[in-house]
Amino acid sequence: MADSLKKLTEIALAFRTERDWQQFHNPKDVALSMSLEVAELVEIMQWRNGPELLAHLKANREHVGQELSDILGWVLLLAHDLEIDLPAAFQAKMLHNAEKYPVEKAKGVAKKYTEL
Amino acid sequence: MADSLKKLTEIALAFRTERDWQQFHNPKDVALSMSLEVAELVEIMQWRNGPELLAHLKANREHVGQELSDILGWVLLLAHDLEIDLPAAFQAKMLHNAEKYPVEKAKGVAKKYTEL
Amino acid sequence: MADSLKKLTEIALAFRTERDWQQFHNPKDVALSMSLEVAELVEIMQWRNGPELLAHLKANREHVGQELSDILGWVLLLAHDLEIDLPAAFQAKMLHNAEKYPVEKAKGVAKKYTEL
Amino acid sequence: MADSLKKLTEIALAFRTERDWQQFHNPKDVALSMSLEVAELVEIMQWRNGPELLAHLKANREHVGQELSDILGWVLLLAHDLEIDLPAAFQAKMLHNAEKYPVEKAKGVAKKYTEL
Repeated sequence: MADSLKKLTEIALAFRTERDWQQFHNPKDVALSMSLEVAELVEIMQWRNGPELLAHLKANREHVGQELSDILGWVLLLAHDLEIDLPAAFQAKMLHNAEKYPVEKAKGVAKKYTEL
Repeated sequence: MADSLKKLTEIALAFRTERDWQQFHNPKDVALSMSLEVAELVEIMQWRNGPELLAHLKANREHVGQELSDILGWVLLLAHDLEIDLPAAFQAKMLHNAEKYPVEKAKGVAKKYTEL
Repeated sequence: MADSLKKLTEIALAFRTERDWQQFHNPKDVALSMSLEVAELVEIMQWRNGPELLAHLKANREHVGQELSDILGWVLLLAHDLEIDLPAAFQAKMLHNAEKYPVEKAKGVAKKYTEL
Repeated sequence: MADSLKKLTEIALAFRTERDWQQFHNPKDVALSMSLEVAELVEIMQWRNGPELLAHLKANREHVGQELSDILGWVLLLAHDLEIDLPAAFQAKMLHNAEKYPVEKAKGVAKKYTEL
């Protein structure tokens, strides 16, 4: 099973090219569409909390996986369209986060870096 | 440069484990956090459109890459926490989308499958 | 203190007209801006739950009120720009919801009307 | 037709009380629900821009009014639940915005106050 961002991006691009949908994919509508998929993910969790939420997510794992996939698809396409090297960007951002949240200050603390 | 979902997930998990943050990462707050990162992406595009938007995104490619990375990070962590095989889910979803949007009906048409 | 949608809309419009900002307020960017303000509201609640969340909201009531006001402002402006009679729409929607969620079926049940 | 925040809040509260739904309305799920309604508003605009978007919104004014009403409903309920005086908060926020965006600096300029 393909597991690289490169390969998954190629799959998403092939799907788009076949349907001639690139013409609609301006960055703003793509970002909007991403936000709509996040809303569909959030909706699965609406009004549920604690153990009930966990059980519901477990029982609906396939649905959750579909929404996560839709979000991922938009992330991959937008990175592609804006010529962003996403694996490199991701690893740079993790290093950046590590500086913003040094282990000795952030360990076990759920605060924004500006409040640490 | 690592490019597999598996490897990028490991990087995100290592970051989290070092800071002992898994305790805060209930699915609802993770999905919320994802939506906040999408909002940061959208904010880059606020009040900009057309060629001005494209130029702005090009000039701020690093910032866009950071927000996309943050979104990706939450997608990877949530998939991990809910034991979802994301590469498999993604490829299944693309097949599902291909059925919902058959090329002969969807080509060049920006409509929801329910309206095709 | 003014309390009518009509009067609050006038206040928002006067603010906008003084700054000559109507030119930027296309519906999509206005809806986007609304979503960004909701994100700011959600951010106040990020990583907090239960009694801790309630205490935090109480302690930050002014901040919450600012975000709710920003959201309300965009709702009022968009209704104005699209010539929607918001008080009438609101009351019609509440009647509509009452039909979708009849008391005898919906009482004490947090389910979508499609699942009742 | 009722037009005051006070009266519209009473309508929303009566609807909720009849259905015994207050038990589900913790602030986080309410804010989430608000974000879901904003997503439904945004979805009406997805893939449409310029004159086509405006024509579509005009043709679907009732639908737009429904989504704006749903958003407004959550704003009113959350303000009520957190004991926020929304008309007062709104007017204070507008004064605050007027300070952040003085006319002489902000007129005709779509920039964040931090960039003015």
